[in-house]
Amino acid sequence: MEKPTLHTVLSPRLLDLYDLSSSIVVIIDVFRATSTIATALYNGAVQVVPVSSVEECIEKGNSIPNSVTAGEREGKVIPGLQFGNSPAEYPRSFIEGKTLVITTTNGTKLLNMAKNNGASEILTGSFPNFSAVCQYLKESNKNVILGCSGWKDRFNIEDTLFAGAVASEIQDAFTIHCDSTLMATQMYESNAGDLLSFAKKTSHWHRLANFGLSYDLEYCISKDVANVLCYYQDGVVLGK
Amino acid sequence: MEKPTLHTVLSPRLLDLYDLSSSIVVIIDVFRATSTIATALYNGAVQVVPVSSVEECIEKGNSIPNSVTAGEREGKVIPGLQFGNSPAEYPRSFIEGKTLVITTTNGTKLLNMAKNNGASEILTGSFPNFSAVCQYLKESNKNVILGCSGWKDRFNIEDTLFAGAVASEIQDAFTIHCDSTLMATQMYESNAGDLLSFAKKTSHWHRLANFGLSYDLEYCISKDVANVLCYYQDGVVLGK
Repeated sequence: MEKPTLHTVLSPRLLDLYDLSSSIVVIIDVFRATSTIATALYNGAVQVVPVSSVEECIEKGNSIPNSVTAGEREGKVIPGLQFGNSPAEYPRSFIEGKTLVITTTNGTKLLNMAKNNGASEILTGSFPNFSAVCQYLKESNKNVILGCSGWKDRFNIEDTLFAGAVASEIQDAFTIHCDSTLMATQMYESNAGDLLSFAKKTSHWHRLANFGLSYDLEYCISKDVANVLCYYQDGVVLGK
Repeated sequence: MEKPTLHTVLSPRLLDLYDLSSSIVVIIDVFRATSTIATALYNGAVQVVPVSSVEECIEKGNSIPNSVTAGEREGKVIPGLQFGNSPAEYPRSFIEGKTLVITTTNGTKLLNMAKNNGASEILTGSFPNFSAVCQYLKESNKNVILGCSGWKDRFNIEDTLFAGAVASEIQDAFTIHCDSTLMATQMYESNAGDLLSFAKKTSHWHRLANFGLSYDLEYCISKDVANVLCYYQDGVVLGK
Protein backbone atom coordinates (compact mmCIF):
# COMPACT_ATOMS: atom_id res chain seq x y z
CA MET A 1 0.00 0.00 0.00
CA GLU A 2 1.27 3.46 -0.84
CA LYS A 3 2.22 5.61 2.14
CA PRO A 4 0.62 9.02 2.61
CA THR A 5 2.71 12.12 1.83
CA LEU A 6 4.35 14.55 4.25
CA HIS A 7 5.12 18.17 3.35
CA THR A 8 6.42 21.12 5.33
CA VAL A 9 5.28 24.68 4.53
CA LEU A 10 7.82 27.26 5.71
CA SER A 11 5.64 30.40 5.59
CA PRO A 12 1.91 31.21 5.39
CA ARG A 13 2.70 32.78 2.00
CA LEU A 14 3.48 29.32 0.60
CA LEU A 15 0.43 27.49 1.96
CA ASP A 16 -1.66 27.70 -1.22
CA LEU A 17 1.06 25.85 -3.17
CA TYR A 18 -0.09 22.67 -1.46
CA ASP A 19 -3.27 20.61 -1.64
CA LEU A 20 -4.85 20.81 1.79
CA SER A 21 -8.16 19.24 0.92
CA SER A 22 -7.08 15.67 1.64
CA SER A 23 -4.59 16.56 4.37
CA ILE A 24 -4.23 16.98 8.08
CA VAL A 25 -2.66 20.42 8.58
CA VAL A 26 -0.62 20.98 11.73
CA ILE A 27 -0.45 24.67 12.69
CA ILE A 28 2.91 25.41 14.34
CA ASP A 29 3.66 28.60 16.27
CA VAL A 30 6.22 27.51 18.86
CA PHE A 31 6.88 31.02 20.28
CA ARG A 32 4.21 30.96 21.67
CA ALA A 33 0.63 30.55 20.43
CA THR A 34 0.50 26.78 19.92
CA SER A 35 2.58 26.16 23.05
CA THR A 36 0.10 28.21 25.06
CA ILE A 37 -2.92 26.51 23.46
CA ALA A 38 -1.55 23.08 24.40
CA THR A 39 -0.82 24.23 27.94
CA ALA A 40 -4.28 25.71 28.52
CA LEU A 41 -6.03 22.59 27.19
CA TYR A 42 -3.70 20.26 29.10
CA ASN A 43 -4.54 22.19 32.26
CA GLY A 44 -8.25 21.73 31.79
CA ALA A 45 -9.45 24.66 29.70
CA VAL A 46 -12.82 23.74 28.12
CA GLN A 47 -11.76 25.16 24.76
CA VAL A 48 -9.50 27.73 23.12
CA VAL A 49 -11.02 30.24 20.69
CA PRO A 50 -8.35 31.61 18.33
CA VAL A 51 -9.36 34.97 16.82
CA SER A 52 -7.70 37.32 14.35
CA SER A 53 -8.38 40.71 15.88
CA VAL A 54 -8.44 42.43 19.25
CA GLU A 55 -12.05 43.53 18.62
CA GLU A 56 -13.18 39.95 18.00
CA CYS A 57 -11.28 38.84 21.10
CA ILE A 58 -13.14 41.34 23.29
CA GLU A 59 -16.48 40.50 21.69
CA LYS A 60 -16.07 36.72 22.17
CA GLY A 61 -14.83 37.32 25.70
CA ASN A 62 -18.06 39.19 26.44
CA SER A 63 -20.35 36.61 24.83
CA ILE A 64 -18.80 33.35 26.11
CA PRO A 65 -19.50 32.60 29.80
CA ASN A 66 -16.52 31.88 32.04
CA SER A 67 -13.98 33.01 29.45
CA VAL A 68 -10.73 34.98 29.63
CA THR A 69 -9.23 37.08 26.84
CA ALA A 70 -5.55 37.04 25.91
CA GLY A 71 -3.24 38.84 23.54
CA GLU A 72 0.12 40.60 23.46
CA ARG A 73 1.99 43.00 21.26
CA GLU A 74 5.65 43.69 21.92
CA GLY A 75 5.57 41.57 25.06
CA LYS A 76 2.78 43.52 26.77
CA VAL A 77 -0.90 42.63 27.29
CA ILE A 78 -2.98 44.45 24.68
CA PRO A 79 -5.16 47.19 26.23
CA GLY A 80 -8.73 45.88 26.51
CA LEU A 81 -7.62 42.24 26.97
CA GLN A 82 -7.03 40.52 30.30
CA PHE A 83 -3.98 38.29 29.94
CA GLY A 84 -0.89 37.68 27.82
CA ASN A 85 0.31 34.92 25.48
CA SER A 86 2.56 33.18 27.99
CA PRO A 87 1.88 29.52 28.79
CA ALA A 88 2.97 30.30 32.36
CA GLU A 89 -0.20 32.36 32.81
CA TYR A 90 -2.43 29.31 32.41
CA PRO A 91 -1.85 26.81 35.25
CA ARG A 92 -4.64 24.37 36.13
CA SER A 93 -5.52 26.37 39.24
CA PHE A 94 -6.52 29.27 36.99
CA ILE A 95 -7.66 27.94 33.59
CA GLU A 96 -9.50 24.70 34.45
CA GLY A 97 -13.11 24.85 33.28
CA LYS A 98 -12.63 28.18 31.49
CA THR A 99 -12.60 29.19 27.82
CA LEU A 100 -9.44 30.95 26.57
CA VAL A 101 -10.06 33.49 23.78
CA ILE A 102 -6.68 34.33 22.25
CA THR A 103 -5.37 36.56 19.47
CA THR A 104 -1.81 36.16 18.18
CA THR A 105 0.29 37.68 15.41
CA ASN A 106 1.13 34.66 13.33
CA GLY A 107 -0.47 31.40 14.47
CA THR A 108 -4.10 32.50 14.31
CA LYS A 109 -3.60 33.84 10.80
CA LEU A 110 -2.22 30.55 9.49
CA LEU A 111 -5.00 28.59 11.19
CA ASN A 112 -7.63 30.71 9.45
CA MET A 113 -5.81 30.32 6.12
CA ALA A 114 -5.79 26.53 6.52
CA LYS A 115 -9.50 26.57 7.25
CA ASN A 116 -10.25 28.80 4.26
CA ASN A 117 -8.07 26.68 1.96
CA GLY A 118 -10.16 23.62 2.79
CA ALA A 119 -7.91 21.61 5.09
CA SER A 120 -9.39 18.20 5.83
CA GLU A 121 -8.39 18.34 9.52
CA ILE A 122 -6.47 20.93 11.55
CA LEU A 123 -4.33 20.32 14.62
CA THR A 124 -2.14 22.73 16.57
CA GLY A 125 1.31 21.57 17.58
CA SER A 126 4.39 22.58 19.49
CA PHE A 127 7.06 20.86 21.59
CA PRO A 128 4.82 20.73 24.70
CA ASN A 129 2.41 18.38 22.88
CA PHE A 130 4.93 16.74 20.56
CA SER A 131 4.12 13.07 21.19
CA ALA A 132 0.35 13.54 21.00
CA VAL A 133 0.74 15.13 17.54
CA CYS A 134 3.14 12.45 16.28
CA GLN A 135 0.99 9.57 17.49
CA TYR A 136 -2.14 10.98 15.89
CA LEU A 137 -0.42 11.59 12.55
CA LYS A 138 1.08 8.10 12.47
CA GLU A 139 -2.23 6.45 13.23
CA SER A 140 -4.34 8.53 10.83
CA ASN A 141 -2.78 7.24 7.59
CA LYS A 142 -3.62 10.53 5.85
CA ASN A 143 -1.48 13.09 4.02
CA VAL A 144 0.16 15.60 6.36
CA ILE A 145 1.12 19.27 5.97
CA LEU A 146 3.32 20.72 8.71
CA GLY A 147 2.50 24.44 8.59
CA CYS A 148 5.00 26.88 10.08
CA SER A 149 3.48 30.22 11.11
CA GLY A 150 6.79 32.07 10.80
CA TRP A 151 7.17 35.71 11.76
CA LYS A 152 5.13 38.16 9.68
CA ASP A 153 5.36 35.74 6.76
CA ARG A 154 9.12 35.28 7.07
CA PHE A 155 10.71 31.89 7.70
CA ASN A 156 11.60 31.20 11.31
CA ILE A 157 13.78 28.57 12.87
CA GLU A 158 11.73 27.50 15.88
CA ASP A 159 8.65 26.46 13.90
CA THR A 160 10.81 24.66 11.34
CA LEU A 161 12.64 22.91 14.15
CA PHE A 162 9.36 21.50 15.44
CA ALA A 163 8.36 20.41 11.91
CA GLY A 164 11.73 18.66 11.69
CA ALA A 165 11.23 16.99 15.06
CA VAL A 166 7.86 15.62 13.95
CA ALA A 167 9.18 14.52 10.54
CA SER A 168 12.16 12.84 12.17
CA GLU A 169 9.81 10.88 14.46
CA ILE A 170 7.20 9.79 11.90
CA GLN A 171 9.11 9.71 8.59
CA ASP A 172 9.02 5.93 8.19
CA ALA A 173 5.24 6.02 7.86
CA PHE A 174 5.25 8.59 5.02
CA THR A 175 6.42 9.21 1.46
CA ILE A 176 8.59 12.34 1.58
CA HIS A 177 9.54 14.19 -1.61
CA CYS A 178 9.81 17.63 -0.08
CA ASP A 179 12.99 19.68 0.26
CA SER A 180 11.52 21.71 3.13
CA THR A 181 10.93 18.53 5.13
CA LEU A 182 14.39 17.20 4.29
CA MET A 183 15.99 20.46 5.46
CA ALA A 184 13.85 20.66 8.61
CA THR A 185 14.59 17.06 9.55
CA GLN A 186 18.32 17.53 9.16
CA MET A 187 18.23 20.81 11.08
CA TYR A 188 16.38 19.16 13.95
CA GLU A 189 18.59 16.09 14.04
CA SER A 190 21.77 18.22 13.96
CA ASN A 191 20.58 20.21 16.97
CA ALA A 192 18.49 17.69 18.91
CA GLY A 193 21.21 17.27 21.53
CA ASP A 194 21.04 20.94 22.49
CA LEU A 195 17.90 22.60 21.20
CA LEU A 196 18.24 25.37 23.74
CA SER A 197 21.58 26.65 22.45
CA PHE A 198 20.32 26.59 18.88
CA ALA A 199 17.04 28.30 19.74
CA LYS A 200 18.94 31.06 21.50
CA LYS A 201 20.48 32.03 18.15
CA THR A 202 17.13 32.72 16.52
CA SER A 203 15.81 36.20 15.82
CA HIS A 204 12.57 35.50 17.70
CA TRP A 205 14.45 34.48 20.85
CA HIS A 206 16.32 37.78 20.83
CA ARG A 207 13.07 39.66 20.34
CA LEU A 208 11.23 37.95 23.20
CA ALA A 209 14.18 37.58 25.56
CA ASN A 210 14.41 41.37 25.47
CA PHE A 211 10.94 41.36 27.05
CA GLY A 212 12.19 39.11 29.87
CA LEU A 213 10.59 35.97 28.43
CA SER A 214 13.53 33.53 28.40
CA TYR A 215 11.82 31.19 30.86
CA ASP A 216 8.80 31.03 28.55
CA LEU A 217 10.93 30.20 25.56
CA GLU A 218 12.71 27.34 27.31
CA TYR A 219 9.32 25.90 28.20
CA CYS A 220 8.10 26.24 24.60
CA ILE A 221 10.89 24.00 23.29
CA SER A 222 10.40 21.34 26.00
CA LYS A 223 8.85 18.12 24.69
CA ASP A 224 5.66 16.69 26.15
CA VAL A 225 5.24 19.02 29.12
CA ALA A 226 1.57 19.52 28.11
CA ASN A 227 0.98 16.41 26.06
CA VAL A 228 -2.57 16.71 24.79
CA LEU A 229 -3.91 16.45 21.23
CA CYS A 230 -5.22 19.86 20.15
CA TYR A 231 -7.71 19.76 17.27
CA TYR A 232 -9.71 22.47 15.58
CA GLN A 233 -13.44 22.02 15.14
CA ASP A 234 -16.18 24.54 14.35
CA GLY A 235 -14.17 27.61 15.27
CA VAL A 236 -12.55 26.34 18.46
CA VAL A 237 -9.55 24.25 19.50
CA LEU A 238 -10.35 21.31 21.76
CA GLY A 239 -8.10 18.95 23.67
CA LYS A 240 -8.25 15.17 23.95
CA MET B 1 31.08 51.69 11.55
CA GLU B 2 27.96 49.59 11.33
CA LYS B 3 28.21 46.57 9.06
CA PRO B 4 25.72 46.14 6.20
CA THR B 5 22.95 43.55 6.58
CA LEU B 6 22.67 40.12 4.95
CA HIS B 7 19.34 38.38 4.36
CA THR B 8 18.34 35.20 2.56
CA VAL B 9 15.00 34.93 0.73
CA LEU B 10 13.89 31.31 0.39
CA SER B 11 11.23 31.71 -2.32
CA PRO B 12 10.23 34.37 -4.88
CA ARG B 13 6.95 34.61 -2.95
CA LEU B 14 8.82 36.13 -0.01
CA LEU B 15 10.90 38.68 -1.93
CA ASP B 16 8.62 41.66 -1.30
CA LEU B 17 9.02 41.23 2.48
CA TYR B 18 12.50 42.71 2.13
CA ASP B 19 13.77 46.17 1.20
CA LEU B 20 15.65 45.74 -2.07
CA SER B 21 16.13 49.40 -2.84
CA SER B 22 19.43 49.75 -1.01
CA SER B 23 20.60 46.18 -1.60
CA ILE B 24 22.61 44.02 -3.93
CA VAL B 25 20.33 41.09 -4.83
CA VAL B 26 21.99 37.82 -5.83
CA ILE B 27 19.72 35.67 -8.02
CA ILE B 28 20.39 31.99 -7.31
CA ASP B 29 19.16 29.16 -9.54
CA VAL B 30 21.77 26.46 -9.08
CA PHE B 31 19.97 23.78 -11.18
CA ARG B 32 20.69 25.26 -13.71
CA ALA B 33 20.03 28.81 -14.94
CA THR B 34 22.63 30.74 -12.99
CA SER B 35 25.20 27.95 -13.40
CA THR B 36 24.71 28.10 -17.16
CA ILE B 37 24.83 31.91 -17.25
CA ALA B 38 28.18 31.89 -15.41
CA THR B 39 29.53 29.21 -17.74
CA ALA B 40 28.52 31.01 -20.94
CA LEU B 41 30.02 34.31 -19.76
CA TYR B 42 33.16 32.63 -18.47
CA ASN B 43 33.57 31.01 -21.87
CA GLY B 44 33.40 34.33 -23.68
CA ALA B 45 29.73 34.97 -24.43
CA VAL B 46 29.26 38.70 -25.10
CA GLN B 47 26.13 38.81 -22.95
CA VAL B 48 23.24 36.69 -21.67
CA VAL B 49 19.69 37.91 -22.22
CA PRO B 50 17.30 36.32 -19.68
CA VAL B 51 13.69 36.35 -20.88
CA SER B 52 10.43 35.17 -19.35
CA SER B 53 8.68 33.56 -22.29
CA VAL B 54 9.44 31.35 -25.26
CA GLU B 55 7.96 33.96 -27.62
CA GLU B 56 10.30 36.66 -26.29
CA CYS B 57 13.21 34.23 -26.58
CA ILE B 58 12.50 33.61 -30.27
CA GLU B 59 11.95 37.32 -30.95
CA LYS B 60 15.21 38.40 -29.26
CA GLY B 61 17.03 35.58 -31.01
CA ASN B 62 15.83 36.94 -34.34
CA SER B 63 16.72 40.56 -33.58
CA ILE B 64 20.14 40.18 -31.94
CA PRO B 65 22.97 39.35 -34.37
CA ASN B 66 25.11 36.30 -33.62
CA SER B 67 22.78 35.04 -30.90
CA VAL B 68 21.56 31.59 -29.88
CA THR B 69 18.28 30.79 -28.13
CA ALA B 70 17.97 28.36 -25.24
CA GLY B 71 15.23 26.87 -23.10
CA GLU B 72 14.03 23.52 -21.77
CA ARG B 73 10.91 22.04 -20.31
CA GLU B 74 11.01 18.58 -18.75
CA GLY B 75 14.62 18.16 -19.82
CA LYS B 76 13.97 18.69 -23.56
CA VAL B 77 14.77 21.71 -25.77
CA ILE B 78 11.58 23.74 -26.24
CA PRO B 79 10.28 23.57 -29.83
CA GLY B 80 11.24 26.80 -31.64
CA LEU B 81 14.44 27.25 -29.59
CA GLN B 82 17.89 26.01 -30.55
CA PHE B 83 19.60 24.76 -27.41
CA GLY B 84 18.96 23.59 -23.85
CA ASN B 85 19.74 24.87 -20.35
CA SER B 86 22.80 22.71 -19.75
CA PRO B 87 26.11 24.45 -19.01
CA ALA B 88 27.79 21.64 -20.97
CA GLU B 89 26.25 23.03 -24.17
CA TYR B 90 28.26 26.26 -23.91
CA PRO B 91 31.99 25.56 -24.22
CA ARG B 92 34.27 28.38 -25.39
CA SER B 93 34.58 26.81 -28.84
CA PHE B 94 30.86 27.38 -29.35
CA ILE B 95 29.70 30.38 -27.30
CA GLU B 96 32.65 32.81 -27.51
CA GLY B 97 31.57 36.09 -29.06
CA LYS B 98 27.89 35.11 -29.16
CA THR B 99 24.83 36.34 -27.25
CA LEU B 100 22.89 33.70 -25.30
CA VAL B 101 19.13 34.36 -25.07
CA ILE B 102 17.74 32.06 -22.38
CA THR B 103 14.35 31.35 -20.81
CA THR B 104 14.09 29.33 -17.60
CA THR B 105 11.31 28.30 -15.23
CA ASN B 106 12.42 29.86 -11.98
CA GLY B 107 15.56 32.00 -12.22
CA THR B 108 14.36 34.43 -14.88
CA LYS B 109 11.17 35.05 -12.94
CA LEU B 110 13.02 36.00 -9.76
CA LEU B 111 15.41 38.23 -11.67
CA ASN B 112 12.51 40.17 -13.17
CA MET B 113 10.88 40.43 -9.74
CA ALA B 114 14.08 41.86 -8.26
CA LYS B 115 14.25 44.41 -11.06
CA ASN B 116 10.59 45.39 -10.62
CA ASN B 117 10.98 45.66 -6.84
CA GLY B 118 13.74 48.22 -7.27
CA ALA B 119 16.89 46.27 -6.42
CA SER B 120 19.92 48.56 -6.27
CA GLU B 121 22.18 46.03 -8.06
CA ILE B 122 21.54 42.51 -9.34
CA LEU B 123 24.06 39.68 -9.66
CA THR B 124 23.53 36.07 -10.65
CA GLY B 125 25.29 33.41 -8.60
CA SER B 126 25.90 29.70 -8.38
CA PHE B 127 28.71 27.41 -7.27
CA PRO B 128 30.61 27.78 -10.58
CA ASN B 129 31.16 31.51 -9.85
CA PHE B 130 31.15 31.28 -6.05
CA SER B 131 34.35 33.21 -5.28
CA ALA B 132 33.63 36.04 -7.70
CA VAL B 133 30.26 36.62 -6.01
CA CYS B 134 31.72 36.46 -2.48
CA GLN B 135 34.58 38.82 -3.28
CA TYR B 136 32.29 41.41 -4.85
CA LEU B 137 29.84 41.32 -1.93
CA LYS B 138 32.59 41.67 0.65
CA GLU B 139 34.16 44.63 -1.14
CA SER B 140 30.91 46.46 -1.86
CA ASN B 141 30.00 47.29 1.73
CA LYS B 142 26.29 47.33 0.82
CA ASN B 143 23.30 45.39 2.16
CA VAL B 144 22.89 41.97 0.53
CA ILE B 145 19.85 39.83 -0.30
CA LEU B 146 20.57 36.25 -1.33
CA GLY B 147 17.54 35.36 -3.46
CA CYS B 148 16.71 31.68 -3.98
CA SER B 149 14.67 30.96 -7.10
CA GLY B 150 13.24 27.74 -5.69
CA TRP B 151 11.03 25.45 -7.72
CA LYS B 152 7.70 26.93 -8.78
CA ASP B 153 7.77 29.12 -5.67
CA ARG B 154 8.56 26.23 -3.32
CA PHE B 155 11.71 26.17 -1.20
CA ASN B 156 14.54 24.11 -2.62
CA ILE B 157 17.70 22.83 -1.05
CA GLU B 158 20.28 23.50 -3.76
CA ASP B 159 19.67 27.27 -3.94
CA THR B 160 19.61 27.52 -0.15
CA LEU B 161 22.85 25.55 -0.01
CA PHE B 162 24.54 28.13 -2.22
CA ALA B 163 23.13 30.98 -0.11
CA GLY B 164 24.57 29.20 2.94
CA ALA B 165 27.94 28.77 1.26
CA VAL B 166 28.11 32.50 0.49
CA ALA B 167 26.93 33.49 3.97
CA SER B 168 29.44 31.14 5.56
CA GLU B 169 32.23 32.76 3.55
CA ILE B 170 31.33 36.44 4.03
CA GLN B 171 29.45 36.49 7.37
CA ASP B 172 32.14 38.37 9.30
CA ALA B 173 31.63 41.44 7.11
CA PHE B 174 27.85 41.62 7.75
CA THR B 175 25.24 42.06 10.46
CA ILE B 176 23.01 38.98 10.29
CA HIS B 177 19.64 38.90 12.08
CA CYS B 178 17.93 36.52 9.70
CA ASP B 179 16.75 33.02 10.53
CA SER B 180 16.86 31.97 6.87
CA THR B 181 20.54 32.88 6.68
CA LEU B 182 21.29 31.13 9.97
CA MET B 183 19.57 27.97 8.72
CA ALA B 184 21.24 28.10 5.30
CA THR B 185 24.69 28.63 6.81
CA GLN B 186 24.30 25.71 9.17
CA MET B 187 22.93 23.50 6.38
CA TYR B 188 25.89 24.34 4.17
CA GLU B 189 28.49 23.89 6.89
CA SER B 190 26.98 20.53 7.94
CA ASN B 191 27.21 19.23 4.38
CA ALA B 192 30.26 21.04 2.98
CA GLY B 193 32.38 17.91 3.22
CA ASP B 194 30.10 16.04 0.84
CA LEU B 195 27.79 18.38 -1.06
CA LEU B 196 27.24 15.75 -3.72
CA SER B 197 25.66 13.19 -1.40
CA PHE B 198 23.41 15.83 0.11
CA ALA B 199 22.40 17.27 -3.26
CA LYS B 200 21.45 13.79 -4.45
CA LYS B 201 18.72 13.68 -1.80
CA THR B 202 16.94 16.77 -3.18
CA SER B 203 13.71 16.61 -5.14
CA HIS B 204 15.22 18.57 -8.04
CA TRP B 205 18.10 16.13 -8.42
CA HIS B 206 15.63 13.26 -8.72
CA ARG B 207 13.64 15.19 -11.31
CA LEU B 208 16.63 16.07 -13.48
CA ALA B 209 18.58 12.86 -12.98
CA ASN B 210 15.60 11.10 -14.52
CA PHE B 211 16.36 13.09 -17.67
CA GLY B 212 19.96 11.80 -17.66
CA LEU B 213 21.40 15.04 -16.31
CA SER B 214 23.47 13.80 -13.34
CA TYR B 215 26.72 15.03 -14.91
CA ASP B 216 25.23 18.52 -15.25
CA LEU B 217 24.15 18.58 -11.64
CA GLU B 218 27.58 17.60 -10.34
CA TYR B 219 29.05 20.47 -12.36
CA CYS B 220 26.47 22.92 -10.98
CA ILE B 221 27.57 22.28 -7.39
CA SER B 222 31.31 22.56 -8.21
CA LYS B 223 32.88 25.74 -6.88
CA ASP B 224 34.72 28.19 -9.14
CA VAL B 225 34.72 26.16 -12.35
CA ALA B 226 33.47 29.28 -14.22
CA ASN B 227 34.58 32.01 -11.85
CA VAL B 228 33.32 35.23 -13.41
CA LEU B 229 31.23 37.99 -11.84
CA CYS B 230 27.81 38.07 -13.54
CA TYR B 231 25.95 41.36 -13.19
CA TYR B 232 22.65 42.53 -14.61
CA GLN B 233 22.47 45.85 -16.43
CA ASP B 234 19.85 47.28 -18.78
CA GLY B 235 18.16 43.97 -19.52
CA VAL B 236 21.25 41.80 -19.98
CA VAL B 237 23.71 39.87 -17.82
CA LEU B 238 27.35 40.71 -18.41
CA GLY B 239 30.54 39.10 -17.14
CA LYS B 240 33.64 40.69 -15.69
